[in-house]
This record gives sequence, structure tokens and C-alpha cells, in this order.
Amino acid sequence: MPVDAYKSESALIARLRRELVAPAAAGRPARPGSGWPLDFVDDMAAIDSGPAPLLWTVDMLMEGVDFDSGRHSWYQIGRKAMAASLSDCAAMAVRPLCALCAVALNNCLSLEDAVTLHRGAHDCGIRFGCPVVGGDTNSWQAPTVVSVSVAARTEPGLAPVCRDGARPGDLIALSGPVGGSILGRHLSFEPRIELALSLRRRVLPHAMIDVSDGLALDLWRVLEASGCGATLEAPLLEALIHPDAIRLSEQDGRPAREHALYDGEDFELIAVLPAKGAEPAFADLGFRLLGRIEAEPGLRLREADGRTAPIERRGWEHFR
Amino acid sequence: MPVDAYKSESALIARLRRELVAPAAAGRPARPGSGWPLDFVDDMAAIDSGPAPLLWTVDMLMEGVDFDSGRHSWYQIGRKAMAASLSDCAAMAVRPLCALCAVALNNCLSLEDAVTLHRGAHDCGIRFGCPVVGGDTNSWQAPTVVSVSVAARTEPGLAPVCRDGARPGDLIALSGPVGGSILGRHLSFEPRIELALSLRRRVLPHAMIDVSDGLALDLWRVLEASGCGATLEAPLLEALIHPDAIRLSEQDGRPAREHALYDGEDFELIAVLPAKGAEPAFADLGFRLLGRIEAEPGLRLREADGRTAPIERRGWEHFR
Repeated sequence: MPVDAYKSESALIARLRRELVAPAAAGRPARPGSGWPLDFVDDMAAIDSGPAPLLWTVDMLMEGVDFDSGRHSWYQIGRKAMAASLSDCAAMAVRPLCALCAVALNNCLSLEDAVTLHRGAHDCGIRFGCPVVGGDTNSWQAPTVVSVSVAARTEPGLAPVCRDGARPGDLIALSGPVGGSILGRHLSFEPRIELALSLRRRVLPHAMIDVSDGLALDLWRVLEASGCGATLEAPLLEALIHPDAIRLSEQDGRPAREHALYDGEDFELIAVLPAKGAEPAFADLGFRLLGRIEAEPGLRLREADGRTAPIERRGWEHFR
Repeated sequence: MPVDAYKSESALIARLRRELVAPAAAGRPARPGSGWPLDFVDDMAAIDSGPAPLLWTVDMLMEGVDFDSGRHSWYQIGRKAMAASLSDCAAMAVRPLCALCAVALNNCLSLEDAVTLHRGAHDCGIRFGCPVVGGDTNSWQAPTVVSVSVAARTEPGLAPVCRDGARPGDLIALSGPVGGSILGRHLSFEPRIELALSLRRRVLPHAMIDVSDGLALDLWRVLEASGCGATLEAPLLEALIHPDAIRLSEQDGRPAREHALYDGEDFELIAVLPAKGAEPAFADLGFRLLGRIEAEPGLRLREADGRTAPIERRGWEHFR
């Protein structure tokens, strides 16, 4: 579940998994071979409610961190909260069903603002078959918080795609260019649900994740979950740098490549695919090759001349 | 979904239902006669996922509104966030399955604090068969927010209990004494899940709700959803005033009865039951009679001498 900025968020999740999830799961049946996500490690968790588990996710957006109500409309903010949770559904190649929207609204918001925020979330959800069906409305003195939970289900016979299935030799492909989303795309992005479902129908990705905290950090998460490493090819990455990353680079002097690797909230999909037979499917759908999974741990970038350099395990903390 | 303090929260929910939920539901099959909750009006919403819909709810708790981390431990705060959502399950007489916990943690919290908060939620959930299976971890400069979503299902053949089924002549019963929860019970209350399920197996309540925002306000919500009124008997109410309400009355000089009617976060159940045949069941289970549903709109309190006075439509905004 993306858009986190907890300083030691990986450490927190590791402890929650070890201390809370593992003991609770003891004695329960193991998850099926295809992999049901059952805890904090994936983009969604499973509701163990019979033969076809539902999946669900939650994303929390905060004023001054994920949005700025001085610059963004409440409609855009509601839309973003929904779209971020829908992007989790895309990451697992499942179809969203319905959503809950819980809010802590700053006292300055009018009733009209509150309705507009919900309308932004609801309209975005409806386009993906995912209406807002309930929630919790609160107000307070502090900055506004919006939390959207989404429930989803798999398409018949198609297990969800987890993070932990990447294997040495697999291809790494990206659904679109990344970097510089702060210039506006972080509010207007399209969750890649139909794309993910189209891919899933044609080929079983070994792993998938959406780029919420940055290409580098989110790919690191796949590698850690899967117990392997990867090398990205710099010429392939260059072709996947978004024009916004180049514009931002001209403003702040940082290399556009840095923005492509370490900015967040592109909400494109990183798909890890079997080396044999997957390429026609992902190429037809507009995914572009970026590199390969390797046995050697770590994430590297290889230049055209063959030199490699490590890619850091860090992401973007927006509005900070 | 309780613990709201939005100034015009009823107006907001009315608009969300009219402008968002109603158009989205147009063309969908009507809910079954027993009543599936499908929008903002009940304690939970239904996930329309086949013959046995899941239900889900979300509660958002905020520092300075719902808890005070200067006085309450992070374990207690996590516990309360879970217990408030579990109480929604009790209100609908459904069995919780699993939970997501989304947090925006103030930067001052340590990793240990964050784990402890989650442990409080998880331990409470586990006792009711409802582990925390995922979430979203964030940090920021502003006060801490904790949001727990819970998914639940009905027991076989037992439809959930909604708010809109109260009918003139029905009995109104309460599961325990109320008022003064601010003295501590708002943190330590027990969600009445087993009690609700036991009641549901013996008799079909026409309506049910948990006392989150106060006996008066929550009963008003049932009356509004059901399109009827009610009269409570003052001598019966006197017997349901919690000792904490009396202690608080001694401190602040307000009548204990006021605290019983207008304080919140007791998390007892208000059950509306058919006049014939229900009494042995609810009396065996410790519910106590409080009054009756009537056709005449409004909520009234009748003294022993027969005089009646209106009960206001207002609730408790805690820590304000």
C-alpha cells in the first residue's frame, strides 16, 4: 500500500509481519501455490472468505504531504485518494468492486467542499466499477486526511499477482514513462487497471507493483520480497524518462534520470515477466523493457559501455 | 460508522446519499427484503460479491478528538480504533473477519510506538477472530490519525440487522448502562459482538445500532432511518445510568441523566425488538427495556408522573 513516508517504514512493516502477522497465521492453511497476498507485503491483503477470496487495500492521503489544498481542488484530492487505491488493484491485476472513504476534514472546509471531495473519489471509482458505498466523516482542527479502502476480486480463474515471484532471468518491463509527476501527473494519473487485466489474461507476470514511491524503491520491494536482484539498462531507462522529469531537471538542476528513478506517484506498473513467450504480450500492450532479474542481490544500472553502478534504495517523500 | 464530529455531518451524509449513492445504485437490483445495508446509512456497507455479501466498515480516530496520547498509551489507542470498528459489526450482528489499519503518525512517534499501536489493534482484533492483515503506514508533522477498516460476514442464514426496520409498538432495549465513558470506558469498552450474535440467533431485531455518539443521537438515527418516533420511560432510563455518569455529574454539576442521554462512546447496543416474543431472549441476555417505538415522529422522555419532554437530537463531541 503505497504513499508512505514513514522514516523507517520498512523496519515497521518487517516488525509488524514478524510480530503480528506471523503468529496470527500460525496454524492456518498455507496460501495456495499461486500466492494469495495475506499480509503487509503486497499491495492488497486477502479477505479469507471462501473459495474466491476478496482482496482489499487502503491508502491514506494527508494535506501537505500528498496534496496541497491551496493549489489542488477538493475534487482532485478526492480523485487522487481513490485513484491511489485503484492503482493497488492494478498492481495485483484484480478488478475493484467498491470503496469506503473515511475523512478527517479540517474545520475550514465547507459542506460543499466535503461533498466535492467525496464526489471526486466517487466519480473516479465509478469509471472503474468501484462506487463509494460508505465511510466515516469527521472534522478537526488539524490538516485534512482522506483514507480510501477498496475491495476487489480476481477475474475468474486468474490468481492475483504478488511481489514475491520474480526469478533470475525474468524480464522487467514498465507500462509508461516515469519521473516529475509532481508537476501535475500525481493528481491526474490513470490507474492501470484495464492494462493490468489485459496483461494478466495473456501472460502470468511473476511479480507486479505500481510505482507509488518511485521506480527504484518499488522495484527494490519486489526484489526483497522475491529474494533476488536486478540490473536495469541505462539506454532503456533513458527511453522511459517522462518529459516532466526533463522539465523538472531544468528547474532544479538534478539529472532527469534521478527523477525517473527516485520520484514517486507515477502509478505506472512494473511487471516482472517470464523471459520466454511474454514479450509479444507486453509489447503489444505498450510495456517497455527495462532490464532483467538476476540472482545477485541488489539493484544496478548498466551504462551502454558496460559499466554498472548501484541504484539506491530510496524513494520520494513528496511536499517535504 | 460512528465517532463523527462533523458539524453538519447529517447534512453531509444526506447529500452523499442523494447525490452519489442513489445515482450509482440506479439500475441495480433492489436489496433483499431483510435489508442489505448498501450505503452510508448503516453501520456497515455491503460488498456485493455473490450470494453471501461481505460487510465492511471504517472508523477514523484522531489525536485530540478521540484520544489523547499524553494520557493514553499507544496500545490503548490502537485497541480503541479496532474496538470501535468491531462495535459496528456488533451493531449489525455480523462476525468480523479481518482488518486493515491505516495510520498517519506524528513524527514524534518512535518505531516502538508505531508497533505498539498496531499491536493494540491486532490483539483486540484477534480476540474476536479479526487479525490486522494489512494497512498503510505514513508519518507527518500533524497529530496522529488511525483508521481501521473491518470486513465481516453474516452467520449462515442470518441477515444483518439494519437501522431502518423499527415499527410502532416495538420495544427499545439497551445492552448496558451508559454515560460518563470519558472517565475511561471509551478506551476499555468491549465490542458487544457475541451478545449481538446471541440475540440475533434467538430473535430478529427490527433495528440495531451501537451507542457511539450518544444514546439520544444514535436512537434518533434509528428513528429517522425507520420513519417513526419513540418514547423512553424515565424510570427505566434512571436504572441504566452508568456509575461513571453519576461521578461525572458530581464533577461538572450537569445531571447524570444528561450524561446518559448525550455522552458518547459507551458502545452498548440499542436493540429495537418486536413486542411479542422477544422479551425472554433479550432479558436472558441482559438487555434492559428502555421504551417503545411510536408512529409519532420525535424522541420523548416520559416521567413517572406521565409528563413528557423532548429528547434533543444531539450527541457528544469528545475532547472538545
